[in-house]
Amino acid sequence: MSDPVSLLQELIRCPSVTPEDAGAQAVLKARLKKLGFEITDLPYGEGEDRILNFFARYGTGHPHFCFAGHTDVVPAGKSSWDNDPFSADIIDDVIYGRGACDMKGGIAAFVSAVEDFLSKKNNFTGSLSFLITGDEEGPGINGTVKVLEWMQAHNHIPDFCLVGEPTSAQTLGDVIKIGRRGSLNAVIEVEGTQGHVAYPHLADNPIHKLMTILTSLTQPVLDNGNEWFQPSSVQVTSIDVGNVVTNLIPATATARVNIRFNNLHTGTALKGWIATQCHRVAEHCKIDIAVSGEAFLTEPGKEVRALCEAIYSVNEVKPRLDTGGGTSDARFISQYCAVAEFGLVGQTMHKVNEAVSIHDLKQLSTIYLNVIDALFE
Amino acid sequence: MSDPVSLLQELIRCPSVTPEDAGAQAVLKARLKKLGFEITDLPYGEGEDRILNFFARYGTGHPHFCFAGHTDVVPAGKSSWDNDPFSADIIDDVIYGRGACDMKGGIAAFVSAVEDFLSKKNNFTGSLSFLITGDEEGPGINGTVKVLEWMQAHNHIPDFCLVGEPTSAQTLGDVIKIGRRGSLNAVIEVEGTQGHVAYPHLADNPIHKLMTILTSLTQPVLDNGNEWFQPSSVQVTSIDVGNVVTNLIPATATARVNIRFNNLHTGTALKGWIATQCHRVAEHCKIDIAVSGEAFLTEPGKEVRALCEAIYSVNEVKPRLDTGGGTSDARFISQYCAVAEFGLVGQTMHKVNEAVSIHDLKQLSTIYLNVIDALFE
Ligand SMILES: [Zn+2]
Ligand SMILES: [Zn+2]
Repeated sequence: MSDPVSLLQELIRCPSVTPEDAGAQAVLKARLKKLGFEITDLPYGEGEDRILNFFARYGTGHPHFCFAGHTDVVPAGKSSWDNDPFSADIIDDVIYGRGACDMKGGIAAFVSAVEDFLSKKNNFTGSLSFLITGDEEGPGINGTVKVLEWMQAHNHIPDFCLVGEPTSAQTLGDVIKIGRRGSLNAVIEVEGTQGHVAYPHLADNPIHKLMTILTSLTQPVLDNGNEWFQPSSVQVTSIDVGNVVTNLIPATATARVNIRFNNLHTGTALKGWIATQCHRVAEHCKIDIAVSGEAFLTEPGKEVRALCEAIYSVNEVKPRLDTGGGTSDARFISQYCAVAEFGLVGQTMHKVNEAVSIHDLKQLSTIYLNVIDALFE
Repeated sequence: MSDPVSLLQELIRCPSVTPEDAGAQAVLKARLKKLGFEITDLPYGEGEDRILNFFARYGTGHPHFCFAGHTDVVPAGKSSWDNDPFSADIIDDVIYGRGACDMKGGIAAFVSAVEDFLSKKNNFTGSLSFLITGDEEGPGINGTVKVLEWMQAHNHIPDFCLVGEPTSAQTLGDVIKIGRRGSLNAVIEVEGTQGHVAYPHLADNPIHKLMTILTSLTQPVLDNGNEWFQPSSVQVTSIDVGNVVTNLIPATATARVNIRFNNLHTGTALKGWIATQCHRVAEHCKIDIAVSGEAFLTEPGKEVRALCEAIYSVNEVKPRLDTGGGTSDARFISQYCAVAEFGLVGQTMHKVNEAVSIHDLKQLSTIYLNVIDALFE
C-alpha cells in the first residue's frame, strides 16, 4: 500500500506560504507524472502576484472525478512553535508542520489513494483529475477561478469535485460540507439635516431614518431555512455617528450590515432588496454593498452517499452533511459542477503547532480510496 | 427722565466675563443705594469659583415685584470686533459691546425705569427688588440657585419675577417667554455577547437590542403639546459602536438620546420610563441620565397681561407668549414664584459686535416703567 506520510513530509518541507510555491507543486507533479497523469501548468498573474497552479488528468472518459486542493499555506505566525513549522517532525505518531491539516495532508492522502487505485485497476474508462492551486489562502484571484475558466475552455469540467479542506470538526469523518451560505456586506450612510434638538422640525434626524431602515432589514424573517441550510441571518455589525454634542441632531449616520444567506436568495436579489428598503425611508442615502460569495448547495447524490459509506466503513462515524461556516474555493467550483468538501480534523488549522496524526492521515487515504473504488465500480 | 444709555455704557466697560465681576455690580449697587434699596451682598463659592451676587429690595410690603438679571457676560471670542468689545462705543445711535443685549441692556433699562417710577411715586406700599447674579453664563452653581435659597430663608420670595433676558426675536416686544421645555440627556449602553456573524445563535447582538430600545423611545407620541407648549420631542443624537470588522458581532453598543419635554412630563418620570424601556429589552444595560432642567410654565396672569399692554402701548407690537428655545435662570425661579422673561432683541447675543440701539433700549425702559406703574396702580 502507498504511504501518504512521506509525501506529506516532503510537501510540508516546502515552505509554500502564499504566494510562494517553494517546490511543493513540483513534488506533486513528479508523483502524478509517474502514474501517467497528463499535466498542464497554469501559472497566472505577473511579478509578485504570480501564482503557480496546475491541472492533471488521468484518462479521458466519464465519470470524471476531480480532487481540488491548495498547496499554499498561511504564515507560521509570530508565536513560537515547539518544532520548526517546516521540518515535518514526527513525535508520538503525529506529524507537525504548517499545512499538515490545511491542506497538504488531504492532498497527500488523495495522491496516495490514487496510487493504490491505479496500481490495481486494469480496465479504467473514467477520468481522475487534480485541480491544484497556490492561491487559496491569498487573494484568490489568480488561482481556482482562472483554472476553472481554463478547464471549461478545454473541456475538463468534471462530473464531481471533492475539495480536500479539513472539514472534520472533532473526529475524522464527522462533517462533510455540501454547500455554504453566501455572504454580503453593506455600508449604509443616511444623510439628514443637522440642527438643534430644541427645533427638531427644522432638522431631519438621519439616525431615526437609519433605525427605520435597519429595523426593516432585521425584523422580517428572510426564510426559515430548509433541509440543508440554517435560516438566513441579517446582523447589524456597527452603527457610527460620532456626535458628542448633546443638543445637536447630526447630519449623517452610518451602519454596517452583514447578511449570511442560504440558497433561497442571491446576492443580487438581496442588493436590490436593501436598496429598496433604504430608499423607501431616506431619499439621500449612500449604499455600498459587496457580495463576497453566493450561497451554493450540492444536493447529496451518489458521490456524497459513497463518501458517507466509505467514512462509516473505515471508522464507524456517521457524517453530518453541513453548510455552515465560512467560505472556501468550493464556492467557485459550484458554479461549474457538483462539489463537496471533506478532509481532516481542522482544529489546528491556521494555528501554532498545526498537526495531523498518522492514524488520521492513513484513515483519510483509505476513505478516499474507498470513494474512488465506489465511483468507478 | 432717567437715561439708561450712560448706565449701560458704564456696565459694558466693566469686562465681567464669568466668573469676573470687574466692578459691574458695584456700579449697580451705587445706583440702587441712592434710591433707598436695602442691599445684601451674596457671594458664593471659594477661590476661582467665587461669584458675586446681590439682592436689593425697596419696601417691605406686597405686591413684591422682582427683576432678575445677570451682570456676567460670555467672552468676546476669537473673531475680531469692529470696536473694542468693552469700550461701549456709540456709532449711529447703536451701543456696541459684549453684554449690550445679554443682558446689561435689560438691567440698565430696568434700573432706569425704577428711578423714574420712584421719583414720582409717593404712597408706595409694595416692594421692588433686584436678584442680580454673576454666574448665569457659567456653571450656574453659585448664582441664582443659592440666592433663591437665601431669599426663601429670609422671606424675600416675590409675588412675581421678571427675568430681563433678550427674548425678543425680530422686533422689541415680539416674544415673551412664560415657560420653557425641560431637557434630559441619556446615555444608554447595551451589553451583548461578541461573536462571529456566521454563528448569530452563539452571540447576542447588542445593536439589535439597542435599536429595539430606541424605537420604543422614539416611536410613541409622548404628547400632542398643549395651549402653551409644543409636543415633547425625543431625538437620538448619536449611536456609536466602532466595529470595523465585517464578520464580527460587537460586544456593546451605545446611544445618546435627548428629550425636550413640556409640562405634561417630569424629568423623574421620564427617567423611569427610559429605564423601563431599556430593561424590558436588555438585561445588561448601563443607563446614565441627566435632567438639565424641568419644564415650567407661568400661566399668564395680570403681570403678563400688563407686560403685553405696556409693549403694545409703546411700539404697537402684540407679543407672542412662547415656551420654546433653550434654558435660563427662569427655570430655577419658577420653583419659587410666577416668572416671565422679557427683554431686548437677542439676535447679536453671544456674537461678535453684540449691540443694542439706543431706540430699543429707551423703549424697553419705557415698557418696564409702564409695567411697574400698572402693577402698583
Ligand atoms: Zn485550506
Ligand atoms: Zn443672558
